[in-house]
Amino acid sequence: MNVTERTIQVIRNRIRAVPDHPGPGVVFRDITPLMEDGPSLHAAVDALAEATKDLDYDRVISAEARGFVFGTALAYRSRKGLVLARKPGKLPREVISVSYELEYGTDSLEIHADSIPPGARVLVADDLLATGGTARAMCELVEKSGGSVAGCAFLIELAFLEGRKRLSDYNVVSLINYSAPSA
Amino acid sequence: MNVTERTIQVIRNRIRAVPDHPGPGVVFRDITPLMEDGPSLHAAVDALAEATKDLDYDRVISAEARGFVFGTALAYRSRKGLVLARKPGKLPREVISVSYELEYGTDSLEIHADSIPPGARVLVADDLLATGGTARAMCELVEKSGGSVAGCAFLIELAFLEGRKRLSDYNVVSLINYSAPSA
Repeated sequence: MNVTERTIQVIRNRIRAVPDHPGPGVVFRDITPLMEDGPSLHAAVDALAEATKDLDYDRVISAEARGFVFGTALAYRSRKGLVLARKPGKLPREVISVSYELEYGTDSLEIHADSIPPGARVLVADDLLATGGTARAMCELVEKSGGSVAGCAFLIELAFLEGRKRLSDYNVVSLINYSAPSA
Repeated sequence: MNVTERTIQVIRNRIRAVPDHPGPGVVFRDITPLMEDGPSLHAAVDALAEATKDLDYDRVISAEARGFVFGTALAYRSRKGLVLARKPGKLPREVISVSYELEYGTDSLEIHADSIPPGARVLVADDLLATGGTARAMCELVEKSGGSVAGCAFLIELAFLEGRKRLSDYNVVSLINYSAPSA
């Protein structure tokens, strides 16, 4: 990875820490200020593209809704296709579905049954790696479709939640790392 | 607008008509095949950028979730900031909210109260102009924030739903026009 420390610092400075959201003691990493600043958004996308440039992929998959931002930007920049992993009931044709566990209960993600051709190499992209549930579900959607996971790319990694452990079969790249909840 | 007819045809050919979705007699225009093909996605974004190149804007606003795709791509391409208009309860800080009517009931969109600085010129971007409710709500969010609407850009316009009438105060651009439900 060839992204300068200065670029990482510029991006990190645009992420706002929102204390006690969504619950007491949790620090929410709000990336809206980063996205709202044109040069910072551009720099973040370019840095993520640089960090993933050695991965060989045909398509990018990203999950509803905030994940579509970096998924789209990476797909556009690399001239690859974009697959939208959506909440149940949003897609109009036959789907492949994967369920995953949340802190309380379960959730599902769906893609069209023909979204990933057999043999396609797919980059999983999201803004945030937390517990890894969403990313893991996207990997399963790729593999259920007959494709392979080229790697997983995240703008932010909350390392203390150990989401990487759930993605240990894959190449995982992240730009901004928080090693503790309040770091 | 300087987008060739051939480009428009290439994009149009990638949009799949799904009959009787979400209800009898309705033809759903499914853009996932367009997004999944890298060169087509790239061409569609570039064509939309070309069609909006005379609009003077600082930021792009787009609505959850599918709208984030073309909103992000336009923002990245033009090196402008991106504002996410989200469903209620998704944003962690103080918000500005606008309600709008659906066929049955109402819905709301929110942005952070500081997402659009006073005086900012904002491009409203979405994949689809149907009745215009979502786009109109985004225009109101921009104006409530003290910004101005530089224009509204859509990949697809369902002209027979006359959404343009609700946006008559603004410059409206669309790439692919369907003049009838089954066209």
